[in-house]
Amino acid sequence: MNFSSDNAFGASPEIIEAIARANADALGSYGADPLAAKVEERLKEIFETDLRAFLVSTGTAANAITLASLSPPWGTVFCHEVAHIAEDECGAPEFYGGGLKLHLLPGEQARIDPVALSAALLEAGARGVHQAQPAALSLTNLTEMGALYTAAQLSELCGIAHAKGMAVHLDGTRFANALVAGNESAAAISWQAGVDVLCLGATKNGALAAEVVIFFEPERQAARIAEFEFRRKRGGHLVSKGRLLSSQMDAYLTDDLWLRNARHANAMGQKVAAALAAHPEIDVLNEPQANMIFARIPLPVHRRLREAGAAYYLEPASQTEDGDGEAVMVRLVCAPTTPESDIDNFLAICAGEN
Amino acid sequence: MNFSSDNAFGASPEIIEAIARANADALGSYGADPLAAKVEERLKEIFETDLRAFLVSTGTAANAITLASLSPPWGTVFCHEVAHIAEDECGAPEFYGGGLKLHLLPGEQARIDPVALSAALLEAGARGVHQAQPAALSLTNLTEMGALYTAAQLSELCGIAHAKGMAVHLDGTRFANALVAGNESAAAISWQAGVDVLCLGATKNGALAAEVVIFFEPERQAARIAEFEFRRKRGGHLVSKGRLLSSQMDAYLTDDLWLRNARHANAMGQKVAAALAAHPEIDVLNEPQANMIFARIPLPVHRRLREAGAAYYLEPASQTEDGDGEAVMVRLVCAPTTPESDIDNFLAICAGEN
Amino acid sequence: MNFSSDNAFGASPEIIEAIARANADALGSYGADPLAAKVEERLKEIFETDLRAFLVSTGTAANAITLASLSPPWGTVFCHEVAHIAEDECGAPEFYGGGLKLHLLPGEQARIDPVALSAALLEAGARGVHQAQPAALSLTNLTEMGALYTAAQLSELCGIAHAKGMAVHLDGTRFANALVAGNESAAAISWQAGVDVLCLGATKNGALAAEVVIFFEPERQAARIAEFEFRRKRGGHLVSKGRLLSSQMDAYLTDDLWLRNARHANAMGQKVAAALAAHPEIDVLNEPQANMIFARIPLPVHRRLREAGAAYYLEPASQTEDGDGEAVMVRLVCAPTTPESDIDNFLAICAGEN
Amino acid sequence: MNFSSDNAFGASPEIIEAIARANADALGSYGADPLAAKVEERLKEIFETDLRAFLVSTGTAANAITLASLSPPWGTVFCHEVAHIAEDECGAPEFYGGGLKLHLLPGEQARIDPVALSAALLEAGARGVHQAQPAALSLTNLTEMGALYTAAQLSELCGIAHAKGMAVHLDGTRFANALVAGNESAAAISWQAGVDVLCLGATKNGALAAEVVIFFEPERQAARIAEFEFRRKRGGHLVSKGRLLSSQMDAYLTDDLWLRNARHANAMGQKVAAALAAHPEIDVLNEPQANMIFARIPLPVHRRLREAGAAYYLEPASQTEDGDGEAVMVRLVCAPTTPESDIDNFLAICAGEN
Repeated sequence: MNFSSDNAFGASPEIIEAIARANADALGSYGADPLAAKVEERLKEIFETDLRAFLVSTGTAANAITLASLSPPWGTVFCHEVAHIAEDECGAPEFYGGGLKLHLLPGEQARIDPVALSAALLEAGARGVHQAQPAALSLTNLTEMGALYTAAQLSELCGIAHAKGMAVHLDGTRFANALVAGNESAAAISWQAGVDVLCLGATKNGALAAEVVIFFEPERQAARIAEFEFRRKRGGHLVSKGRLLSSQMDAYLTDDLWLRNARHANAMGQKVAAALAAHPEIDVLNEPQANMIFARIPLPVHRRLREAGAAYYLEPASQTEDGDGEAVMVRLVCAPTTPESDIDNFLAICAGEN
Repeated sequence: MNFSSDNAFGASPEIIEAIARANADALGSYGADPLAAKVEERLKEIFETDLRAFLVSTGTAANAITLASLSPPWGTVFCHEVAHIAEDECGAPEFYGGGLKLHLLPGEQARIDPVALSAALLEAGARGVHQAQPAALSLTNLTEMGALYTAAQLSELCGIAHAKGMAVHLDGTRFANALVAGNESAAAISWQAGVDVLCLGATKNGALAAEVVIFFEPERQAARIAEFEFRRKRGGHLVSKGRLLSSQMDAYLTDDLWLRNARHANAMGQKVAAALAAHPEIDVLNEPQANMIFARIPLPVHRRLREAGAAYYLEPASQTEDGDGEAVMVRLVCAPTTPESDIDNFLAICAGEN
Repeated sequence: MNFSSDNAFGASPEIIEAIARANADALGSYGADPLAAKVEERLKEIFETDLRAFLVSTGTAANAITLASLSPPWGTVFCHEVAHIAEDECGAPEFYGGGLKLHLLPGEQARIDPVALSAALLEAGARGVHQAQPAALSLTNLTEMGALYTAAQLSELCGIAHAKGMAVHLDGTRFANALVAGNESAAAISWQAGVDVLCLGATKNGALAAEVVIFFEPERQAARIAEFEFRRKRGGHLVSKGRLLSSQMDAYLTDDLWLRNARHANAMGQKVAAALAAHPEIDVLNEPQANMIFARIPLPVHRRLREAGAAYYLEPASQTEDGDGEAVMVRLVCAPTTPESDIDNFLAICAGEN
Repeated sequence: MNFSSDNAFGASPEIIEAIARANADALGSYGADPLAAKVEERLKEIFETDLRAFLVSTGTAANAITLASLSPPWGTVFCHEVAHIAEDECGAPEFYGGGLKLHLLPGEQARIDPVALSAALLEAGARGVHQAQPAALSLTNLTEMGALYTAAQLSELCGIAHAKGMAVHLDGTRFANALVAGNESAAAISWQAGVDVLCLGATKNGALAAEVVIFFEPERQAARIAEFEFRRKRGGHLVSKGRLLSSQMDAYLTDDLWLRNARHANAMGQKVAAALAAHPEIDVLNEPQANMIFARIPLPVHRRLREAGAAYYLEPASQTEDGDGEAVMVRLVCAPTTPESDIDNFLAICAGEN
């Protein structure tokens, strides 16, 4: 019963098989393998548009190298105050970006509030060289609170950013979860809404370590793409045996593995959410639209779960296993490989049945 | 017949099996998996000393993050003028190191000439803040020209560096090839000779993407180790599903796979070297002690090889397939998975038999 | 009638005379002139303790180079949300600091709220390499809103910072104004309260371009001092004819010029503040304790002032000369050289007498 | 008798008077003062072309901020192996340039050898992202060895650089000395020869601290200019009371002060050079074309000079005051304010007359 993170588990069997299958021959190194080209073609189909795609092994690398290619060192990247790039990457965007700034914005369910964004941009950069200049907006879908942006919500935010001359980055670590949780196409919730660069994650949704950075409208973004490629190399992220990454991404996008994985994780998440919401003593703290649930769990229930070996993170507000003395705040994440039996077991313990 | 690089091939079967085997359970993320701990223990046995070991996925990352942890931004790293860190990493050391300098040194067979090092250090840093300060010596064994440093040669260079208060980094991308080519222990050609940090490569010797950075005397180097860990994270090189790296490295070091692989690659290299040296029209340009051969090949031979599909790099001095009109300078690298039949075929073509 | 900034005016005559006087002979370059040594000795007397002092020509350089010497690239500097280092230096701290982060804190009158600081530090850095680490607290006295920190207030904040292992930087661009506005010694509101490094400004208080960075307890801070000196040189801030800076600072600290200048600026500021507060239609928006007044001025008054040639900044909330249609928010700053007749004239216009 | 550096002395009286004169009124801050505009206009006359001019206080800042605006972080700047940017700035170009590389080139009299430049460029950047890319050529006139580039020599080098798509930076710390030593116009030895950006120094030729960075063809270089302005601010080099710099530069360019100063320094240098060359025991080591002389002086002469209080630098090859036991290698620099009596005295001591 491990709900600590979608990266606590291994990969889908298809991913492992693909790595093994790609191992056979001598292939071009450093991204020049045929599978990388195949991945790019497949992404064009999925997103129904022209694009350029670059593989890296971690989400932090994908985000940070991308942002450095969208913002000068004296630029400001606007993001949500609990965004992964702000909270969990130890300053990777600032490092790759030569000292750029993150400007933190509020918003319910970790969605950026458009009013707050507009207000922040009102004076941003107005004093010329005395101030950092607005350079990029960074969104995350699924959000860090497990919520979904609709295409309309994305469009509104992207529109505000573009009107200020800013680029838009979408951290899509859980893009598949967002995609299958909504009713809109991959194109609709990315470039059609105004996203310039999408960091599409696979690691948390069934791969071992593979992310793909997608530049839409590649001709318009040719200068950024060239920067990205140099920055990727200088960051040590141009893997020599590129097949390790391309084989994973190829399998991920084949036969809808990515969507199947996300659907399972979301279904498990929704099952947990519904059961916890129905529990008389447990409060669900977010609007769980996919595979992430934040909840306040009474200490007796929490202790029963821990005794049974359940793994999950306590939120910072609950610093110790004793929480506030009555309950703890927890984050539960379901993965593509989370067995339904674990869910049933977990919920039975919550209900006091085990 | 691919002699372009030791990374043109896939991985040893044991490596792929290890990745698959490690996929099963929920494990600690971000390097906290049991295989990572096992690798560290195994390295202590191999190197016969205490150490700390950190996994990353590329050699460029290993080298650059290490050098940034050994040198301040105003430091100078002394290295050979054809070192990988100088020639092939697009400034990764300068990027991670916040603008440090590389000072390029000459030396036969890509071994740093101790006299040149001493001369360079004579005045280095003497003018205080007006000058970059000597911070680290970076060695490469096997060298970029396929030659070996003996323990005595390493000791001499490390001694010069330490006398100046500098740290010593060893780029061990082909450390296994060097180890099996010589008669000295892993300890003898690393920490006993004065190496402070070894970047031990696996990618070019049978893994898919795995390198391990080894800090010897970890208590003395505690501050550098702490820096390294933060820099690795900020560089996006702390892989969440760390088992991808640890499983490869574990298999690499198990049952002497790394030594077996290197012995095969070296044996193939030596066979090529001997045959080419005996060829009346071919000049071998280096002292091939392991798996790398640099040779001058007459155009007719070169064309026969190309027609037969042989892949190898032309040296920069031979800018085109026509070389200087009479011959081309080439680099041939044998890999752990290079079949002996490829060697035989290649040599037969050279000899004009095919 | 120029109230736009304390740097809109030239320097005190004593400063210009000192520059001319120091011009005579051949002197040591790069900070090795006797006046620099004299300044350091004089500062020891003023601050009643041992210290090391380094001259630079701008406040941005002083702040940014200092912070880079107090924080690693993965560190967080905590400061007020309207601090000069956050709002007015175009990311200089992030640039010099290799991508460090500023964490913005609230607080009345631009004083950092100790409760907010403690809350921000509660979880800061707890997740190890996944997060930036708390490294320094940056205070500003006089604050950006013209308010004063008492020694007790500084001590409380410094205590919180030190308990977390952080260093304390004090931006003393207007330190002299704060000093003469309070009843406490220079020592009391700097090192005795826990300040590790003070950037003592002279430019805004009667010099042309001179700031001095003061490290207290220099033996304890030897490593930071060494870093500072290298970073100053690399930043291009080690002036060759150092006498330009040392002569200004020497004159500034001689015969209490710095205190006399600040007393005049503060007295002018207090006179303005009192008169505006008494004006029936003008609201004073801050607690003006020294030479800075923020006020809401009705449009008719504002227009009379502009017609008479009065110069001052509109606050960002008042984007245009029409403000909100009824009034504008303005910042008025008095300088050491602001003539009292300008004040009288300004106040008469406000009162409708001119 | 101080021949240690052209910055050992104070400024010309005209410079000090200009600083004092500019002190009077309230003026625009941060470069928006009328004297800065006047300087730009004057430079257009002198260089007979359109240009943009930006003031900074040190040569290191001028060079490093310029190079960062001409090269991406993955760029290579080609310069002479004894260039100030390589030897004397503690890595400032690498710092401002985000980790760019300097490629050191040989050449007699510290002039870059065109053949060596062409050879270095032959393969530069050919391997794409694996290599740093050629970005800029940095020249120095007067060279570090006191020699002159003619317009024809500059043109040849600039042509090679431009053919490779590189920008050309000219370190003009001693540009005035070069200008008056030759027979060619300021335009001829700058933009007409292909220089894109000239860092024109005043500090070593009679100012206290003032350098001006000149972008020729400003429309073509608009993007670089914008970068420069942000980088200058972030570097802490946008002086608030900009009149300090503009007044010096205005005086410097008025009534040919800069040319008169350089003519005096050169005349003194030539007098020293001629006398030393005629001395039977002294070898002049460079071709002194302006105000710098490198010479080998027998120990007895050296000791007489030291006893008489003569100040000059020993070259690195002469580490101690005993040199090689027979003689020392020294550098002698004459300044605009070097009195001819010092020269006479110095030469008399050399001749054994004093």
